[in-house]
Amino acid sequence: MPELRKDPVTGYWVILSPDRSPHPDDLLPASQDGLSKSPATCPLCPGNEAHAPPEVYAHRPGDGPAAHPNAPGWHLRVVPHKFPALVIEGALEPAGAGVYDHMNGIGAHEVLVETPDHGRQLSVLSDREIEQVLWAYRHRILDLKRDARFRYIAVFKTHGQRAGATLSHSHSQLLALPVLPKGVTDEIEGALRYHAYRQRCVFCDLVRQEIQGRERLIYENSAFLVFAPYASRVPFETWIVPKQHRPSFEDGSAPEYQALAGALRVALRKLYLALDDPCYSFLLHNAPFADRPQFLPSVSHGPYQDRWDFYHWHIEILPTIGRGLGAEWGLGCYINPTPPEEAAHYLRELEV
Amino acid sequence: MPELRKDPVTGYWVILSPDRSPHPDDLLPASQDGLSKSPATCPLCPGNEAHAPPEVYAHRPGDGPAAHPNAPGWHLRVVPHKFPALVIEGALEPAGAGVYDHMNGIGAHEVLVETPDHGRQLSVLSDREIEQVLWAYRHRILDLKRDARFRYIAVFKTHGQRAGATLSHSHSQLLALPVLPKGVTDEIEGALRYHAYRQRCVFCDLVRQEIQGRERLIYENSAFLVFAPYASRVPFETWIVPKQHRPSFEDGSAPEYQALAGALRVALRKLYLALDDPCYSFLLHNAPFADRPQFLPSVSHGPYQDRWDFYHWHIEILPTIGRGLGAEWGLGCYINPTPPEEAAHYLRELEV
Repeated sequence: MPELRKDPVTGYWVILSPDRSPHPDDLLPASQDGLSKSPATCPLCPGNEAHAPPEVYAHRPGDGPAAHPNAPGWHLRVVPHKFPALVIEGALEPAGAGVYDHMNGIGAHEVLVETPDHGRQLSVLSDREIEQVLWAYRHRILDLKRDARFRYIAVFKTHGQRAGATLSHSHSQLLALPVLPKGVTDEIEGALRYHAYRQRCVFCDLVRQEIQGRERLIYENSAFLVFAPYASRVPFETWIVPKQHRPSFEDGSAPEYQALAGALRVALRKLYLALDDPCYSFLLHNAPFADRPQFLPSVSHGPYQDRWDFYHWHIEILPTIGRGLGAEWGLGCYINPTPPEEAAHYLRELEV
Repeated sequence: MPELRKDPVTGYWVILSPDRSPHPDDLLPASQDGLSKSPATCPLCPGNEAHAPPEVYAHRPGDGPAAHPNAPGWHLRVVPHKFPALVIEGALEPAGAGVYDHMNGIGAHEVLVETPDHGRQLSVLSDREIEQVLWAYRHRILDLKRDARFRYIAVFKTHGQRAGATLSHSHSQLLALPVLPKGVTDEIEGALRYHAYRQRCVFCDLVRQEIQGRERLIYENSAFLVFAPYASRVPFETWIVPKQHRPSFEDGSAPEYQALAGALRVALRKLYLALDDPCYSFLLHNAPFADRPQFLPSVSHGPYQDRWDFYHWHIEILPTIGRGLGAEWGLGCYINPTPPEEAAHYLRELEV
């Protein structure tokens, strides 16, 4: 049974998941095994559905969604993770042990297979196919939100070994958590502090300033801005921010998902071309659930109690390239040799 | 000229250091070049002193400290980093640009060569040699503290390519910063919040609990506790915490440095043996400077204004092994397959 443990000083959560790794040698540097799997043995390929747990969602054009579950014919598929970090069964049991806080490892961990084609990465899918991925994110978020035990759903993607991916078949992950991770509370608290002082959304201000300045702009369409953030932590860090203020991704409109599919494809394609298929991860930064009590320790909630109006969802893409200090995790300070203005200029001019 | 930029939402700092990388291919995954350098070409080896900037500190037994500066004969040596992340010349110029905050990249970046012997890692040095490294940390911290522009000095070590090291010759780094990094303010704020509520130091409470429980204990001597922290972010994460409450490393006593040298050697040696010379980084978690105004945005300082009595210095060692989520940077949530109790049991029993 996995366990959630909280650091008593800084408040980050760790998922202690001893059952997750079936092989003791997973402690050693990741081998290429998983990444070099051929379609014949890839657990995410059509025909190998039996290698993964039964699907929780699938897109099968032509016939009804559940006509032939767990059989080939799907365009997109979501399955529970075979070695989940958290498990779905059980009641939450938060408890203390002296100075420490812990909780049993309840949650959901799902794999979203973005395409049946083993060789096609997200960046080469069509806008229409990427849009289906976004709708699937939304579908799974809405479904997992119905579970009253969860406080947050992390939606993220890793591509390539250096980014932490263990399978090369293009996929995203969803991790439903019974706690608010520290990266989320940090961002929420920062946005709340800004809004409480200025009565404006910090991300709306960013969008306005980046549109005006243009030097960090990479791509823009009707609804989204793609830009290199001012304080880029790594070379070619790329954010995709909706122009329309909205706290939650899952409340987006159909035209927005269509526009986001285009923006995401262009961003990933430009990074692919500029950096020769770099390893990267992206994370959907989304508001917690509006209808659950949340606790932000270091900010007075004031009029914002249980509302996230001040927040603005977006996507942050972090290419896994370059060398850092090696002390980022503890220090929270990053070294980046590439000014975002240079990265943006390069990406902006690149034809895709 | 490097530049410091602050993320307007979460408040982390990025050092934008375009001049740091002399080679454009530094953007690609680190090559083995630097790590496989032989003593003949290693810039940290005796005889190659001309390849590094003039030393700022050296330990040369027998003759006076500066009898033959920048010549062989030293046991330990500190030089400015050849490609520093921050530069020492100039006045601080904090400024805003719309929603953004920045500052020119003033600071100090030094390399501490721990031994003249190219082949000897820190974990195989003698207690006496490691103690000299600790005294050198203290000497450089005290010297850099005299510079009124600095707010914090990060002392850290990276070992091996996966941890970010670019040279195999055993060395540590010092980075004097004109700002408080977010990792530091997070920990300071957490410790302050705990102390304000309980009137006790959180690290003292940790030490008490770990001594009592013993299941996460790895090694203990007169003055230090080596243990696997309760919320270990990575397998075999190891903390070294002084039993005596003290905010600042540089205020330690001679017997403490002697005991710390032993504890550090045992900890690193056990990790070396258990994990077959793992890549790792460690970071000295130290109080900011007591005599400078500091700003912690989200905590009421109350009676603690400009004092760090509530803080407790220590060292955190993070082996760079295993696989994470790939989304740690944004999410601030970690997955660890190895319970710290198991890691501690294994390390505790290991003879060194």
